[in-house]
Amino acid sequence: MSARAAPVIILSHPQLGENIGAAARAMANFGLADLRLVAPRDGWPNKKADAMAAGAGGVVECARVFGTTSEAIGELELVYATTARERGTTKEILTPAEAAKRLQAAAARGEKTGILFGNERAGLDNEEISLCDAVITIPTADFASLNLGQAVLLNAYEWFRAGDTTTPARTEHGPLHRKPTREEMFQLFAHLERELESSGFLYPPEKHGTMVRAIRATVHRARLTYQEVQTLRGMIVALAKGKHRVKKDGA
Amino acid sequence: MSARAAPVIILSHPQLGENIGAAARAMANFGLADLRLVAPRDGWPNKKADAMAAGAGGVVECARVFGTTSEAIGELELVYATTARERGTTKEILTPAEAAKRLQAAAARGEKTGILFGNERAGLDNEEISLCDAVITIPTADFASLNLGQAVLLNAYEWFRAGDTTTPARTEHGPLHRKPTREEMFQLFAHLERELESSGFLYPPEKHGTMVRAIRATVHRARLTYQEVQTLRGMIVALAKGKHRVKKDGA
Repeated sequence: MSARAAPVIILSHPQLGENIGAAARAMANFGLADLRLVAPRDGWPNKKADAMAAGAGGVVECARVFGTTSEAIGELELVYATTARERGTTKEILTPAEAAKRLQAAAARGEKTGILFGNERAGLDNEEISLCDAVITIPTADFASLNLGQAVLLNAYEWFRAGDTTTPARTEHGPLHRKPTREEMFQLFAHLERELESSGFLYPPEKHGTMVRAIRATVHRARLTYQEVQTLRGMIVALAKGKHRVKKDGA
Repeated sequence: MSARAAPVIILSHPQLGENIGAAARAMANFGLADLRLVAPRDGWPNKKADAMAAGAGGVVECARVFGTTSEAIGELELVYATTARERGTTKEILTPAEAAKRLQAAAARGEKTGILFGNERAGLDNEEISLCDAVITIPTADFASLNLGQAVLLNAYEWFRAGDTTTPARTEHGPLHRKPTREEMFQLFAHLERELESSGFLYPPEKHGTMVRAIRATVHRARLTYQEVQTLRGMIVALAKGKHRVKKDGA
């Protein structure tokens, strides 16, 4: 993760404490800390916000209250307004992903950034939108009904994601999770093929090569760890032993 | 949006109806419709789930209940298990974005896919994880406390996003939002520069060219619509009129 300053989250005229708390939790999960409230309907502090945000890294405790949206975003250099649908404005409309990229770039230049959210009932009014640089609209299916906490969550997530360096696909690597060497794979193949040969599985002889190569391809595709190679060899020993015993008993 | 079959969402042993409802709403927002519940703690149907999911496109009404996780995912061809943290498994661990790409690719091949979520208290157990192809873990900041509804939301969002063709940045285009022609821009420049010239703003003469080019650059950067060009010309007329009147009155 980068150490860039995360965007400020500004909630304009929020109504329900639960939603403020949910927004704070969403922020804390993705490294955002600065929450500002413009004239929250039920006053501040709010017990329902506290309950919903319990443990969310002090985001609610440090939230600041402002009288107007202009004051709340006054010292910021880049601010995006979130809207649920297009509003007949000529402002640029960004996906959360594109907005996150631009917010990261601005933060990298040392700019102070923010994302402004309207309230649960009516969203932002056109006057508030006109104070911002551009608009963020979350693309959805035909049924579009994201609540305030969910909208904050998706934007916070996208901001984190834009600066995140987590490998898209990985496996854990402990001492037993190391990859086997090629030599260890060859030993596995030799062991398996020897036992299959002696059990009569690799029959008829003219198909021997094809069958062996198909089995090796299956094993390779599993991308075994060293530990799994050892387990598999133990399984082969156990299965072959059983077979030899049955043979001895039966024959 | 593609018409690919969206992943099935399977909630294993969910506890709170509210969370089931929130998961259903999250799904509906992003075009997912098939919800399966493994042994929900408080039985099914559940009034709290109904209340939370009100209007969410029938996702809750059509949810199906299964006795075991194996039965719930039995006919699927690709299933990912979600976990909040690494579990000492050698399974591949995917980000939601990478998982979404693979789910879209599988759906494009006609495969039936699903994402399995554990319950609020304990997540999935290792036995359930072992039934799945790989693990999805949502990258977060140090404070990591996403609830079930949020985890479903982020995965549903990523699935939609992976198939979404929304332009990352766009502006609306109505008849008045069309781009001005170059000729219309030249007329604006000529009008503005004529009035600035006659008002004495473009002074001294040797800086005239530099000043005009700087003003044009500012105007270009605003990427005006045709309507905005007309508004700006009206503003220039109004401002210049005022000035002429003052001059007349004052001189």
